[in-house]
Amino acid sequence: MDKRYRPELTDAGRPATIDVPATDEHGAVRQVAIAGEHPLTVYVDKQELLTLMTLGGAPEALTIGYLRNQRLVESLQDIVSVHVDWEVNAVSVKTRNGLADLEAKTAKRTKTTGCGQGTVFGDLMEDVDSIHLGGESMLARSTLYELLDRVRTFDTIYKQAGAVHGCALATNAPGDVRILSFVEDVGRHNAVDAIAGQMWLDGLDGDDKIFYTTGRLTSEMVIKAAQMGIPFLVSRSGLTQMGFEIARKVGMTMVGRATNKHYLLFTGAQRFRADA
Amino acid sequence: MDKRYRPELTDAGRPATIDVPATDEHGAVRQVAIAGEHPLTVYVDKQELLTLMTLGGAPEALTIGYLRNQRLVESLQDIVSVHVDWEVNAVSVKTRNGLADLEAKTAKRTKTTGCGQGTVFGDLMEDVDSIHLGGESMLARSTLYELLDRVRTFDTIYKQAGAVHGCALATNAPGDVRILSFVEDVGRHNAVDAIAGQMWLDGLDGDDKIFYTTGRLTSEMVIKAAQMGIPFLVSRSGLTQMGFEIARKVGMTMVGRATNKHYLLFTGAQRFRADA
Repeated sequence: MDKRYRPELTDAGRPATIDVPATDEHGAVRQVAIAGEHPLTVYVDKQELLTLMTLGGAPEALTIGYLRNQRLVESLQDIVSVHVDWEVNAVSVKTRNGLADLEAKTAKRTKTTGCGQGTVFGDLMEDVDSIHLGGESMLARSTLYELLDRVRTFDTIYKQAGAVHGCALATNAPGDVRILSFVEDVGRHNAVDAIAGQMWLDGLDGDDKIFYTTGRLTSEMVIKAAQMGIPFLVSRSGLTQMGFEIARKVGMTMVGRATNKHYLLFTGAQRFRADA
Repeated sequence: MDKRYRPELTDAGRPATIDVPATDEHGAVRQVAIAGEHPLTVYVDKQELLTLMTLGGAPEALTIGYLRNQRLVESLQDIVSVHVDWEVNAVSVKTRNGLADLEAKTAKRTKTTGCGQGTVFGDLMEDVDSIHLGGESMLARSTLYELLDRVRTFDTIYKQAGAVHGCALATNAPGDVRILSFVEDVGRHNAVDAIAGQMWLDGLDGDDKIFYTTGRLTSEMVIKAAQMGIPFLVSRSGLTQMGFEIARKVGMTMVGRATNKHYLLFTGAQRFRADA
């Protein structure tokens, strides 16, 4: 991949929260920050694809990452331009050669867990069989702790408005863990899609990275991280049975309930080093 | 509505958690309960509709509530039978007259927030204009506290496995708040759909009820509660801008951040009485 290719992009991120009045248990009226939630209708080559509901912080990366994770485009080079226009709550994508195999992919729908009922065009589950996360990279416990320390400083909208999930992409570099992207959104699948889009835009591979999420490790989260080629998935929350099974199958090192100095290593112990 | 009509149903709820081994920060291997997550492919009149990912605790009510909330069936009487078969992870629905207007509804897709990216067939947002929650019923603060007290004893899978959301339907009866249904699922939209299905099965109306959720109050949650005719929506979590706007528009009394004796009343103050 030519790491320098960039589609023509708008830069239409918008404020994450708005203040609304609310009455508390003492009868006092307070201004309370709540998370933005905006419809963003995706048009690809002038055809309406679907409407995303998003916080709106990174709409271009979200759109690109959505198309990537749904495997509707094969590479960033397929995308000519991404124009977000909040006046009409729309994003217009121009592709070089149209979307890959759209008819076949929209024929099968899986409503995934999310906090809700996600759409997966095509049958992502079938893709799982073809993924194996190889590579030699190891995750050290001290690096995990370093990551959790870094992440703590980021969680801003969650702390303010409490209705979003955050995802972070970090370097797996002992002593030098850096957060390369941090995205919060009303839906955690939006957050992971936006990270996937940003990875393409920045020309980043997954193999030497750690993916962190505040959200739960369900099947779809694990599949998406695996598709992005990231061998290390860390969450503050718990996991589900299918998340566990898929992580084991693709060879992912998955850590749940990770806060401060606590964690549970669920899968991929061969790549985890419990150093001091 | 004939309150006694019941479709022919299986009773195929399955255990909510499984135990898996995990290694903690001390290097100890522990058995940890994680939430089940199972694909359940919905066939209606032998045609595949979609696959839900679910905890599997109330698959019949979930299926009925999904069809109800997506407005694919008009009433319980339209459903002849609901047969769940976990051997093949499928539920087979037989209807009296087919699904309402399926083509038109599947033509427009909105990926809602959920924790993720939900599917809303058709354009639920357009339905919002037609909903106004009338009625005379009031919610007293003491009743809200009573509800929060009742709910606390229920949250079982969440406490065990921490990867689910819970929803409860309760009576708005001062001094006699009862939880009529409590459903947990890996997706909170599944939980609300299962409650909607159970309301139909039990012949319950929404107007004298309170809907409680552990999840965030996004647009889709508010719309679903409104469609169920429930004027009172209470959450432990925060809310989003569109959740707020839709609740105001349909005249819903919405309370967020509700735990113990704390809460924030966001909309519908005219129906809330701050008694002692």
